[in-house]
This record gives sequence, C-alpha cells and structure tokens, in this order.
Amino acid sequence: MTNVVESVAEMRAIVAAARKSGKTIGFVPTMGALHNGHLELMKEARKACDAVIVSIFVNPTQFGPNEDYDAYPRTWQEDLQACKSVGVDAVFHPQAEEMYPAGWGTWVDVNGVTDKLCGKPRPGHFRGVATVVTKLLNIVQADKAFFGQKDAQQVVVLKKLVRDLNMLTEINMVPIVREADGLAKSSRNVYLNPKERQAALVLYQSLCSAREMVAAGEHNCQAIRTAVLRQLKSEPLASVDYAEIYSFPELKDIEKLNQDVLLAVAVRFGATRLIDNMILIPKHS
Amino acid sequence: MTNVVESVAEMRAIVAAARKSGKTIGFVPTMGALHNGHLELMKEARKACDAVIVSIFVNPTQFGPNEDYDAYPRTWQEDLQACKSVGVDAVFHPQAEEMYPAGWGTWVDVNGVTDKLCGKPRPGHFRGVATVVTKLLNIVQADKAFFGQKDAQQVVVLKKLVRDLNMLTEINMVPIVREADGLAKSSRNVYLNPKERQAALVLYQSLCSAREMVAAGEHNCQAIRTAVLRQLKSEPLASVDYAEIYSFPELKDIEKLNQDVLLAVAVRFGATRLIDNMILIPKHS
Repeated sequence: MTNVVESVAEMRAIVAAARKSGKTIGFVPTMGALHNGHLELMKEARKACDAVIVSIFVNPTQFGPNEDYDAYPRTWQEDLQACKSVGVDAVFHPQAEEMYPAGWGTWVDVNGVTDKLCGKPRPGHFRGVATVVTKLLNIVQADKAFFGQKDAQQVVVLKKLVRDLNMLTEINMVPIVREADGLAKSSRNVYLNPKERQAALVLYQSLCSAREMVAAGEHNCQAIRTAVLRQLKSEPLASVDYAEIYSFPELKDIEKLNQDVLLAVAVRFGATRLIDNMILIPKHS
Repeated sequence: MTNVVESVAEMRAIVAAARKSGKTIGFVPTMGALHNGHLELMKEARKACDAVIVSIFVNPTQFGPNEDYDAYPRTWQEDLQACKSVGVDAVFHPQAEEMYPAGWGTWVDVNGVTDKLCGKPRPGHFRGVATVVTKLLNIVQADKAFFGQKDAQQVVVLKKLVRDLNMLTEINMVPIVREADGLAKSSRNVYLNPKERQAALVLYQSLCSAREMVAAGEHNCQAIRTAVLRQLKSEPLASVDYAEIYSFPELKDIEKLNQDVLLAVAVRFGATRLIDNMILIPKHS
C-alpha cells in the first residue's frame, strides 16, 4: 500500500507514527520523471530501512530563470506506478505553495564545493538544492537518504550540508545506472532527438577513455582532462560546458592522481544539457 | 545531576537516550553570563518539558569584526551553578572548533525580517544566529526552545527559520526580566559604569511613556516614535542607534497602531550597546 501525501502535516503524521513504532526511515528525494536510476535508489532504501518514503517535487528554487522548470518532464501516473512496484510506503508529492508558502524566505548556502562544476553555469542551483533538501529531511526525518552518483557534486554538497548543520540523516550515494549503450539514465534524455541521442554517447566514451589512461599508468590530471576535452569536442553536435577533475569527495584542485578523483563532464546537445562522471582510482604499482 | 557535555557526539547520545525513554526535551540556548532572564527561560523549560538542556556557547559567527566577541563576559562556574540550581539535566558547552571545525562552511539566511532593527547596524549578526540555532536544534532535537523577549527580533527570525525550514522545534518567547529600577537584564550591563548605568534607565522609561501614550488613545506610530526618540535623546550619555515601530510578529512597516506592534530601541552608552523593547497593544474603544 503506497500512501500519496500532499501536505507537510500529513507527511509529519506518517513519519511520527513510523518513528513511534520503532521503524527506520529511508528517503529518496526526486523530481519525478522516474527512470531505472531512481528505482535503484528506492531498492537500496528498501533494503536498508523499514519504511521507504519517496518525494516527487519539481523544485522551482533550483532552476535558473532561463532553465527548463516549466518544460521539465512530469509523468505522475507512471511515477506512482514505479513507486508501487518497489514497495514504497509513502510518496510525498506537494505543490510548490506547500513547500514555499507566501512570505517564505529562508535559504541554506553550502560554501566551498558549490562554486565549481555545475555551480558555475548554474548560479543558485545548489542553494535551491541545499534548501529544499534541508526542508525535506526535516519533514521526513529520515535515517538514511539515497542519491545517485550521476549528480556526484550534489552528493558532495549534501554530505557537507548534513555535516555542517549537524543533521541526523546519513547521505548515501548509489552508482550510476546506464542505458545498454552506456548513456547515463537521466530524466532529460527524453529531450534528445535521435541524432543527439547517438551523439550523447561521447560522454561515457570519453570517461571510459580516461579510465583506460589511468589503467595504463597516466597520473597527470591535466593530461587526462585534455584528452577527455579533445574527445568530447570531436563530436560535432556536442557543445562542451566543462570537463574537470577534482579530488573526491573534497572537490579540491589536484595535479597528480594520487587519490580518488572525480572526472565530471557537462555537455550540451542543442538545448539539452547532459552531465556524467566517473570516479577515477589511482593505479597502485 | 547536571551533565556537562562538550562534544556533539556525547550530546547526541544523551538526546537519543532521552527520546528513547519517551521524554520531551526543552532547550535554552545561551551565550552564558547567565542572569535572572536566563533563569526564567530555564524555569519555563523545566515546567514545560521532561528534560532540560541548556547550551552555553559564545557563538563567534554572530559577532561582527568590531564587536565584543573577545570581551564578552564568560562566567562558566557561576553559570554552571545557576543551571544546577534550576535542575537542568545537561549543559552543552562546546568549544568553537567543535561547532565550526576546519572546512566548515554552510550558512542559513532568513530573509525579510533581518534587514531592519539590529540587522542594519550588525550585518551578518542574524545569519550567525540562524546558523548556530539551526545547528543546536539539530543536535538537541528539542520539542520546545525558549528565548527571551529582550531579543524580540531574534525570536521573530527564529520562528520564521523554523517555519520556513520545516523544523520540528516550537519556539517560545518568554517576557523580559528587569532590574528593580526597570533596566532590562542583559549580560552586557556589567560593561556600564555607574553614571551609564543610571542613564540607561531612559530606555525603559521611554517605552513606558509610549505605553502611556497608547493608553491615552494615541494610534499614530510616527508620533509615538518621535516622542520616544525625543526622550532618549534628552539623556546626555545616550547615543541612539534606533527607535522603531513595526507590526508584530511580521515586522512590517505600519502607520496606524491597529494591531500589536513592536517598539524596539537600541542605544549606546560609551562603548556599550543596549537594546530594549515593548509590545504595544492598541487600545480598543
């Protein structure tokens, strides 16, 4: 039985009842348009916790004024079926006014890890993410929350948020789920026309090439980054936003691959912006 | 038995044990230098909740670069005795590094009610307050937290914080405690020399005059404010920061006293800045 909950008050009551009966709560915050990547998060929550809550909320405060908030895919009926299929206990599905009523105005800013990668071309994005996740975690009071590695920077930001504000929820990162041909699952993939869909394979291919370079002994981050950029730019339909390497999970500048690093890429195909990443692990000789 | 707790981890363990045994938690955040006003907060918490936690933490992030963080009175032994005298269960007394470890950097900004009154001459003050209170409430997981009306704007800010971020703690405001001659209790009163101490009476006197004007039927906020300013300025040792009237608790501009309003004053005596306030209730004819 999957409860559909639209109000904060009702969500709180369900959470309080679960808590009272000693249940642990696993939480998967989403913006809907659920794909197998999201299902993987729900399955992990299902394995780890007694009760599973999924939120489906296209959060306006994390979209920029020229971004795709209005166009963002909304597939409520399919989403609800997907939640039911993995035994989700409650789906929190508030209207924007329930989360941001008139007079609302309190923001959470995570500094230090939000000014790079997707934070640069999307100013305010991580402020919106940190703020809505703070609100959702306070409402759901989850023991564990689950996020996809696809948004690796988001996971870094949220781990720092929880640590810095002494929140109780444990943030868990779940590996990227890919299509058979390697394209990372994304709610935005539906925007791609067939030619763009084919061209988008270059993201994962460039990451795999980097992994091979590391396996072959390359430890110079700049050399790896240059090769990835070259490969991305060889695709005529691709317009590269960034290809960057940072230490992981600190997101500090790094020259030598002497610890885990995050190789992250963002590429536009027409009006559609896709991201992908891989954690590169240094080869020990 | 009053526990003294210096680490977040130990505080969490105590809170978890209290929660597990079904106890409600009352919380009084302070910066120490406890006076009868603080004791009143603790007694209210004692009455309302099963377990009472007091934090004593001079929070560096709410002091400006030219403010009195280093000079702020620290009276730990007396404070601990005061907590014991009213049956506080635990005193949370962390070092600054425990609250703000290396690499820390997540801030909470409450907008709309922080740009006026004390927010104007103390930029960043309420950001520091909102941030540390968010952290403390997350650590202590209080059912109810208690704050003095002396810092009425702070109470407004924290009520908005809790509402906007969907936190579970209820924010309670406790009336101002005054010396026999009317001066509001404040940890900063110890800074005053005898002449300043005498001169400082003008704060409460000006508030009482305003109350009398309202009782006599005055409903024009500007007229009341002008009279208060005149009275404050008649004291040669007083340097007025502000005397303002806003709707309460919204802190909106208001012309006619047709709802509860906050009359708030801030005055410097030498290097010491004191604040006081009164909630004026319109006279119904």
